[in-house]
Amino acid sequence: MIIECQKNILLDNINIVARAVSSRTSLPILECILLVADSNGFRLMSNDLEMGIETANMEANIVEEGSVALEARIFSDIIRRLPEDNLKIKSDENNITVIKSGKSEFKILGMAGDEFPYLSNVEKDVSCTINGETLKNMIRQTIFSVAAEASKPVLTGELFEIKDNFLNVVAVDGFRISHRKESIETDILHSAVIPSKALNEISKIIGGDDEAEITMYFTERQVLFELPQCTMVSKLLDGEFIRYESVFTSEYYTRIIIGRHTLLDALERAALISSRKSQNKPVYLQIAGDNLIISTKTEMGTSFEELYIEHDGKDLDISFNPRFLMEVLRVIEEDVVYIHMTNQSNPCIIRGCDNEIARYLVLPLRYRE
Amino acid sequence: MIIECQKNILLDNINIVARAVSSRTSLPILECILLVADSNGFRLMSNDLEMGIETANMEANIVEEGSVALEARIFSDIIRRLPEDNLKIKSDENNITVIKSGKSEFKILGMAGDEFPYLSNVEKDVSCTINGETLKNMIRQTIFSVAAEASKPVLTGELFEIKDNFLNVVAVDGFRISHRKESIETDILHSAVIPSKALNEISKIIGGDDEAEITMYFTERQVLFELPQCTMVSKLLDGEFIRYESVFTSEYYTRIIIGRHTLLDALERAALISSRKSQNKPVYLQIAGDNLIISTKTEMGTSFEELYIEHDGKDLDISFNPRFLMEVLRVIEEDVVYIHMTNQSNPCIIRGCDNEIARYLVLPLRYRE
Repeated sequence: MIIECQKNILLDNINIVARAVSSRTSLPILECILLVADSNGFRLMSNDLEMGIETANMEANIVEEGSVALEARIFSDIIRRLPEDNLKIKSDENNITVIKSGKSEFKILGMAGDEFPYLSNVEKDVSCTINGETLKNMIRQTIFSVAAEASKPVLTGELFEIKDNFLNVVAVDGFRISHRKESIETDILHSAVIPSKALNEISKIIGGDDEAEITMYFTERQVLFELPQCTMVSKLLDGEFIRYESVFTSEYYTRIIIGRHTLLDALERAALISSRKSQNKPVYLQIAGDNLIISTKTEMGTSFEELYIEHDGKDLDISFNPRFLMEVLRVIEEDVVYIHMTNQSNPCIIRGCDNEIARYLVLPLRYRE
Repeated sequence: MIIECQKNILLDNINIVARAVSSRTSLPILECILLVADSNGFRLMSNDLEMGIETANMEANIVEEGSVALEARIFSDIIRRLPEDNLKIKSDENNITVIKSGKSEFKILGMAGDEFPYLSNVEKDVSCTINGETLKNMIRQTIFSVAAEASKPVLTGELFEIKDNFLNVVAVDGFRISHRKESIETDILHSAVIPSKALNEISKIIGGDDEAEITMYFTERQVLFELPQCTMVSKLLDGEFIRYESVFTSEYYTRIIIGRHTLLDALERAALISSRKSQNKPVYLQIAGDNLIISTKTEMGTSFEELYIEHDGKDLDISFNPRFLMEVLRVIEEDVVYIHMTNQSNPCIIRGCDNEIARYLVLPLRYRE
């Protein structure tokens, strides 16, 4: 393979595929980036066997077709530091690869391109198209409540459910449920659970390029994201996801309306005491009339503050892990939030005041005086 | 103690004293910041027994004099998150401390102020005054070659030598010597070895406030830095420092003159191969006529490049740990450097072309074909 191209174009593409390079693996070729120059063009590929990325063909002069797999870290470090914009990469039949730019020349040993696990072919039957920025927001507004541990692997991903002209994205970790929906133009009915790692990486690849449309293609075992700059294929997670719809009841005995930032700032202060030194002590909320008292007490000390609220229904004393409330309040987009509660032990439901496209359910902690 | 002050003023002072708070210690009071309100004013103090910092008195309303020691981390986190600019701190005879701002109130348990190790009194006989930015530069241009390991503790600090109307700052680690001097107005003769930690912290405290004059007072065992915003006292290191002057000879058989950035960039590229995966393989320099060839070879691959140089004297093949050259080239201020060499095994001397206030000695590695 012999190609000539521009340093910055190549670097942009390296940065995309680097997201699916294995870091610790017993298969050295998974630590590589594959360079492919064929009749279609010149492009890069990576695959950690959970997900794989293939860039679009980039501007390059292909002098000789071929492919080679180069260890990702050294390849990207070398390209980043080359002295000039123009560069040339040449690999021979033994995969000895020479990278030249100006008066600098590197020689590194690659691996055979045809040993690289190419991305599998994904049937393009079931699809859904959505604006990049919208998809990124849907992920950001839910992914924090994905389960961290793999005791139930399906919960380490997010449910993507297409139903009734809506895309629903749902994350559940046993203590809370985050649900974000968006209307889309499709009449299909489909659901799949996508690993959170793939969703985090796709969010980063979307980056600033927000206006682009993204098409997702689903098969039984895989999802393919088609972006202008690359395609990503990820495995799906097996297992039954929680039936999230029934738990979002509209019934409540206590409802408060409060400024999102006001409540978030107060909880962050309270968490200084309750979450000190990785403790998980509760924060107490006492709702009485138009007053909300937020307090904590640990061996470290106490905190106490009073906030003004709008309040319907009964007075209520309830306690929470403040992190669960804070993470929700950080991602809601409206400035005012509604919190619906029934009693000390049932979950509360939080949403922005103006719309219901994002809603959150959070379990309280057991209340102790 | 009862004081009222402004959040931002207090935070600025917390950030200064935080630099001498112990992080892991068996003496809990060393993890504290001492608050002192007396007839002089209100100020903060910290002391990790290697060094101590006392802020200048800050703007505050002292309602009741007294002192209390508060765990630094929680104190600074609370102050940072307070909702309003005005705050009040009140501690009682049991050191229970209430911090109030707006409708937020924190209560934490402090420790008795008089158990805190106050900074020791330093005789102000032997002194030297220098501009803050100059001191910061002198430290920055030398401190990278302080010995990391404490096998010879005196080399983990920098020599401050006042002699012949010059302040000399010298760092040595067994492989290289960095020497920076600056003329000062004093006729004293004195030398002391200051721990690199204290020098790093004083550089950070100087920060942007470059125009200020700094006075250093030396005693046999301590140095005191007097800044407008605080005083810092540090222990000195015992032991004999290397006689650095005799090693900087002016004799050479080979001298090259080269652009600092050109050489630095080429070495950084070569180091991608030679220093890969924490290896410390040599970089080869072949000086022949007006050409410098820089090359490396490891099991990872090779690199090769050619640079134009000005050259006096003999041709020479020599090899170095590239990091030692790179660290020097990063801190020299001139754009063109002189490198003097005698042979493959003697140290080279590097300095900027326009002046000799900073000069560096670097040992080569044993040369192997």
